[in-house]
Amino acid sequence: MTQYYQNADESRLERGKRALAEIDGQAGNNVVAALADIAPDFARYLFEFPFGDIYSRPGLELRAREIATIAALTAMGNAAPQLKVHIEAGLNVGLTRDEITETIMQMAVYAGFPAALNGLFAAKEVFAARFPVQREQVA
Amino acid sequence: MTQYYQNADESRLERGKRALAEIDGQAGNNVVAALADIAPDFARYLFEFPFGDIYSRPGLELRAREIATIAALTAMGNAAPQLKVHIEAGLNVGLTRDEITETIMQMAVYAGFPAALNGLFAAKEVFAARFPVQREQVA
Amino acid sequence: MTQYYQNADESRLERGKRALAEIDGQAGNNVVAALADIAPDFARYLFEFPFGDIYSRPGLELRAREIATIAALTAMGNAAPQLKVHIEAGLNVGLTRDEITETIMQMAVYAGFPAALNGLFAAKEVFAARFPVQREQVA
Amino acid sequence: MTQYYQNADESRLERGKRALAEIDGQAGNNVVAALADIAPDFARYLFEFPFGDIYSRPGLELRAREIATIAALTAMGNAAPQLKVHIEAGLNVGLTRDEITETIMQMAVYAGFPAALNGLFAAKEVFAARFPVQREQVA
Amino acid sequence: MTQYYQNADESRLERGKRALAEIDGQAGNNVVAALADIAPDFARYLFEFPFGDIYSRPGLELRAREIATIAALTAMGNAAPQLKVHIEAGLNVGLTRDEITETIMQMAVYAGFPAALNGLFAAKEVFAARFPVQREQVA
Amino acid sequence: MTQYYQNADESRLERGKRALAEIDGQAGNNVVAALADIAPDFARYLFEFPFGDIYSRPGLELRAREIATIAALTAMGNAAPQLKVHIEAGLNVGLTRDEITETIMQMAVYAGFPAALNGLFAAKEVFAARFPVQREQVA
Repeated sequence: MTQYYQNADESRLERGKRALAEIDGQAGNNVVAALADIAPDFARYLFEFPFGDIYSRPGLELRAREIATIAALTAMGNAAPQLKVHIEAGLNVGLTRDEITETIMQMAVYAGFPAALNGLFAAKEVFAARFPVQREQVA
Repeated sequence: MTQYYQNADESRLERGKRALAEIDGQAGNNVVAALADIAPDFARYLFEFPFGDIYSRPGLELRAREIATIAALTAMGNAAPQLKVHIEAGLNVGLTRDEITETIMQMAVYAGFPAALNGLFAAKEVFAARFPVQREQVA
Repeated sequence: MTQYYQNADESRLERGKRALAEIDGQAGNNVVAALADIAPDFARYLFEFPFGDIYSRPGLELRAREIATIAALTAMGNAAPQLKVHIEAGLNVGLTRDEITETIMQMAVYAGFPAALNGLFAAKEVFAARFPVQREQVA
Repeated sequence: MTQYYQNADESRLERGKRALAEIDGQAGNNVVAALADIAPDFARYLFEFPFGDIYSRPGLELRAREIATIAALTAMGNAAPQLKVHIEAGLNVGLTRDEITETIMQMAVYAGFPAALNGLFAAKEVFAARFPVQREQVA
Repeated sequence: MTQYYQNADESRLERGKRALAEIDGQAGNNVVAALADIAPDFARYLFEFPFGDIYSRPGLELRAREIATIAALTAMGNAAPQLKVHIEAGLNVGLTRDEITETIMQMAVYAGFPAALNGLFAAKEVFAARFPVQREQVA
Repeated sequence: MTQYYQNADESRLERGKRALAEIDGQAGNNVVAALADIAPDFARYLFEFPFGDIYSRPGLELRAREIATIAALTAMGNAAPQLKVHIEAGLNVGLTRDEITETIMQMAVYAGFPAALNGLFAAKEVFAARFPVQREQVA
C-alpha cells in the first residue's frame, strides 16, 4: 500500500470506511464503536471527511500523511489517544519504528522537549504492544 | 539532496551551519542576523541543536522532515514566520507545491479549518514570491 | 433558572458561592474542598471572579454561557476535568444532551477531530453517570 | 433565521454554499475566492463539512453555534481572521453586540485575560466597520 | 520596588489601579483606554483580579512574577501584544535585559524554538524603543 | 546552589548530566532510563541542550529558571509529567512551596482557571509525596 486510490463508483462513506480500515485498523473500528451511543453521526463524518476526502487524495503518499499526523499530534500534545492510533497507523502504512521516533524527536525543536518526550513514551507503548516477541528477545 | 550526511570531522556548529544553509537558505541567514544584537548565543543553539543534531540525523529523509515541520507549525498556528520559512525549506529540499498544500490541508482534520486556512494562505504567499513567472503565465 | 440575577446586598464572594452551587453543584464543591490545603485563597478567587463576576452578569443567559465554556474547553483539549464539570453544569442549567453533543461535534471544525472525539467521550462518561436508568433501558 | 433547515433535494455542497452565504456573508465568499489558486478543493471541503454537514444540523440553533465558535476561537487565540469572520457571523444570525462581548469576556476565565483582550479588540474592529453611524453619534 | 504591599484601607479596585500603574505603566493605561467603548467592565476586572488580587499578593516578589508571565506568554505564543507589555513591565520592576532574554531563550526547551525566537524578537522591539541611545552608541 | 557555574574542562554532556542530577534529581534519571530502549540519543540531547546549554547559563539564577518553567508548563497545560518534575525541581533549587503555588495561581490570569487548577493539583501531589510527615501532623 505505497500509494493511493480513488474508486469512482464508491461513495465518500464507502471510501472512508475502506481507508479507515486500511490505515487505522482495529483502533479505528474501536473509535467508531465507541461513538455509537453518543454521536453516531460523528462516526459517519469521521469516515467521510478525514478518510473519504483527505486521506484518499492522491497528492501525498500515505506514509507522508502519517508522518504529518504524528508530527502534529505530538506537537499539540493534547490528544494522546489519537497519537497512539496514528503511531499504529504509521506502522500499518509502512513507516519503520525509526522513522516514527525520528519524527517525534524532531518535535522537540518545534514544540519543546516535553511534547517530544510524551510522544516518545506513547510510541514506546505502541511498539511494546505490537512487537512483544522482539522485546522478549531483548530482555 | 535526497538523503543526508554526517561528516565526522565537522563540529555540531559547522554541521548545523551547513544544514541550515542548505535547508532554509537565505531565510535562515536572516533569522541568525536578526539575533545578533539581542541573543547571539541563541543563534549558535539554533545551528547546533535543530540543524547540527536533529536535521542531520540519518534516520529520516529531509523531505519527510519538512513535511513533519510544516504539519506541526500549521497545526500549532502560532508561529507564522517560521511556517513560511519551512514552506520555503520544503521547496528547497524537493517537496512539490502539491505535497506542501496536501500536508497543510490535512491539518484541518487534526487542528481545525482555521489552522489549515491560515497555513494555505502562508503557502500562497511563499509560492507567489518564489514562482512569480509561473503565476503570470497563469494570469 | 433561565436568566440570571444580581442581588445588591450580596458580596461578590456570597454571589459567587451561590452561582457556583447552582451551576456546578457538587462538582464545584469538590474542587473547592480539594484546594483547601494547597491554595485556599484560590478557592475564594474561583468563587469571586468566574462566578461572582462573570457568570452573574445579566447580558448572556446561563445556557449560552455553558455552551461557550463547553466549546472552549473542548477546543483547548487540555483541561479534561473541567470539561466534565461543565458538561454536568450544562445539564444543570437546562441544556439537553443533544445541545451539548452538537456543541462538541462542532469543535471538529475549529480544533480538529481529536479534540471533538475526546470531548464526546467526556460527555459520554458524564451522561452515563447522570442517566444510569436510561442506559439500562437501552441495554 | 432562528432555526435551521435541511432540504432533502440539496447536495451537501449546495446546502453548504447556502449556509455559508447566510452565516458568513461576504467574508465567507472572500475566503473561498482566496483559495481558488492555491487549494480549490479545500473551498469545496469548507462548504461541505463545516457548513453542509455541521452548521446545517437541526440540534442546535445558529445563534448558539456562533457563540460556541466565537468562544473557541477567542480561547485558542491563534486564528484572528477567522474570529473576526465569526463575530460578523454572530451578528448575521442575530446575536447582539452585548452577547458577543459577554461570550468573549467569559473566556478570560478559561483561557486567560490576554485571549479575552485580543478577542474584545477583534470585536471592536468588526463592530466599528459594521456600525459606523452609531459610532459617529457617540463621538 | 523589590517587594510588595497590601493596604488594608484600599479597595481591590484602587489597589489594582495602583499595581497596574506601577507594573505596566503607560502600556496598562492604553489597554484600559482601548476597552472603554467595547467592554468597560472588563477594564475593572483587569484592575481587580490580575492586579488587585494576584500581583498584590505578598508571597512572590514582582521580579519573579514578571519572569513567570514572560515565560508563559512566550511559551503560549498567541498573545504578542501582552508579551511586549510584560517585557516592558519586567524592566519596570527591575529585571535586567539579560534576565529577560534568558527567560525567553529557556522557552525553546519547553515550547520550541519558534516560540523562543518570536519572544526574542518581541524583546528586541521593546528594548529598541526603551533604550534608543544605547543602540545608537552600538551603531 | 543559588547561582550557577560552568566548568571549562567539562563537555556539554558532562555538564548537562551534572545539572540534570542537581536540578531534577531522581526524576531526571527516571526519564533518561525510560528513553533507553526507544530513543537513547534523545536522552543525550536532553542532557546537552536543556541542561548542558540552557540551565548552565550564568545570566539567570536557577530559582528564577524553575519559576519560568513551572509557569510555562502550567500555562501550556499539556505536559503534566514534566510539570511535576519541575515542581520537584523547584523545591530542589530552593523555591518554597508558597513561591511555587503563587507562580501557579498567577497562571489563572494568563492561561485561565483550569490551567491554574490543574497546576495546583499537580503541586499538591508533589508536596504530599515530598513532605509526608507534615501532612500527618496536619491530619
